[in-house]
Amino acid sequence: MKQLVLEVEEILEQALPPEETVPTVLHESMRYSTLGGGKRLRALLAMGACMAVGGSVKNTSGLVAAIEMIHAYSLVHDDLPCMDDDDLRRGRPTNHRVYGEAVAVLTGDALLTEAFAELARMPEKYGIDYQTTVRVISEVARGAGSQGMVGGQVVDMASQDQELSPDTLRYIHEHKTGALFTAVLRGGALLGGANSEQLSALTRYAENFGLAFQITDDILDEIGEAEQLGKAVRTDQAHGKLTYPRRYGLEKSAEMARRCVAECHEALSSFSDQADLLRELASFIIQRDH
Amino acid sequence: MKQLVLEVEEILEQALPPEETVPTVLHESMRYSTLGGGKRLRALLAMGACMAVGGSVKNTSGLVAAIEMIHAYSLVHDDLPCMDDDDLRRGRPTNHRVYGEAVAVLTGDALLTEAFAELARMPEKYGIDYQTTVRVISEVARGAGSQGMVGGQVVDMASQDQELSPDTLRYIHEHKTGALFTAVLRGGALLGGANSEQLSALTRYAENFGLAFQITDDILDEIGEAEQLGKAVRTDQAHGKLTYPRRYGLEKSAEMARRCVAECHEALSSFSDQADLLRELASFIIQRDH
Repeated sequence: MKQLVLEVEEILEQALPPEETVPTVLHESMRYSTLGGGKRLRALLAMGACMAVGGSVKNTSGLVAAIEMIHAYSLVHDDLPCMDDDDLRRGRPTNHRVYGEAVAVLTGDALLTEAFAELARMPEKYGIDYQTTVRVISEVARGAGSQGMVGGQVVDMASQDQELSPDTLRYIHEHKTGALFTAVLRGGALLGGANSEQLSALTRYAENFGLAFQITDDILDEIGEAEQLGKAVRTDQAHGKLTYPRRYGLEKSAEMARRCVAECHEALSSFSDQADLLRELASFIIQRDH
Repeated sequence: MKQLVLEVEEILEQALPPEETVPTVLHESMRYSTLGGGKRLRALLAMGACMAVGGSVKNTSGLVAAIEMIHAYSLVHDDLPCMDDDDLRRGRPTNHRVYGEAVAVLTGDALLTEAFAELARMPEKYGIDYQTTVRVISEVARGAGSQGMVGGQVVDMASQDQELSPDTLRYIHEHKTGALFTAVLRGGALLGGANSEQLSALTRYAENFGLAFQITDDILDEIGEAEQLGKAVRTDQAHGKLTYPRRYGLEKSAEMARRCVAECHEALSSFSDQADLLRELASFIIQRDH
């Protein structure tokens, strides 16, 4: 897994426009918020899905770069003063604290755009056929858009300091983080040549993975230390956000996360040991301390 | 031309997610800033380029929707308090004045993402082949990204209240508005089945069109009335921005714009009357009063 994370860094390093290219401040800012840190979970999931269906991991390089750029853009925008107003991210000052708000907004915009540019380069750079390229772009756009990640973020923002129903809490998580997980799992699987049965199984894996991830994130926000997490803690509380631990208690939340992970393994039951990376990731996700 | 503008509205109306779809506030906001107004220049250029090379204008529907969403997103983000801080756009309050800053940021993000989703739907919705679809996505991403529109905006923001060289002024215009014009002209041409010679001619048209457009925009900011323009005027002055009229004077600037339009017509010299929409648009661009 560590080896793969290094490969992800290398792929991103190559895919991002060089710092010397004009406008240098923008490219520096894009690299500041994308390189150097992060668990690279989404990238590993894309690779894992591709391997699970017997594809070559090299096929996922474009998706890996794109999805990490999209994840980075979403963090840059989420951290803005008008959103979560965070100062710390991955143990470093957030983008707008370094480059100012205007450049931070534009950095997010540029990363999102560059992600699609990189996906559209897959045929030329990695020999992916055009039809698969278009399908992967569709999956990513759906997962990241108004009925995916951005939609979840809007409902999350609108719900602060409000009584939330469990349904709304679930909507937020399924969209804010879950939709992009689904996109990378499905995208990685398509790049590996998945059939429709495999695609369904990996979609089920993705949904449960996303929920387990989010519940664990909420638990860590409640019990973790800022130093270890590399970001501010107790922010959910401060913003009056409803979370799983606050709704169901720590014990019950941890149990729910474990059940999701069991579902992940169940979804992979018909896969060979080629799916072992996905199995590892599912178990890792609730054991992590950051 | 009026008939085509109505068609563009209809295409956008269909392509944008319905207001009733959750999250409703986001979809309402996306529609608020995209529908109802605007000259639809970029859409008309895409249609014009496709017709110029003998293609069916229906082929451009996906590009038309995508490019107007991208244009709308860029305006929503440009108007933010941390950017140009504008209150008025197309004669109505800007997006963040209606929906607040957080939703405005996310509205821009969602529109940009939806644009690529729409482009990726071109094979299924309009029968565009996959290879052309990927090429068009590449053109749009390049035109909108860090070395296109967003790059121009970054340099523009960084240049406020500074002495600018003519080279920097030109860089800003070529990127901030020009790059997207180039993308739509080339995209429309590709969707019409252009050969490489036609593509070069239309690229030359695009570059000159973009410059003529921007110079005229600067002149209108200097001499126009807010009511007619539907947005604040004298903002360039207020922000200490260097513009063509301020650098070269009104007379000389108008002359430069006219020369660009002559270049546009020159670029179309080998095209039949199928290129008449592009010819009209080039002449219109410097005669407009809003």
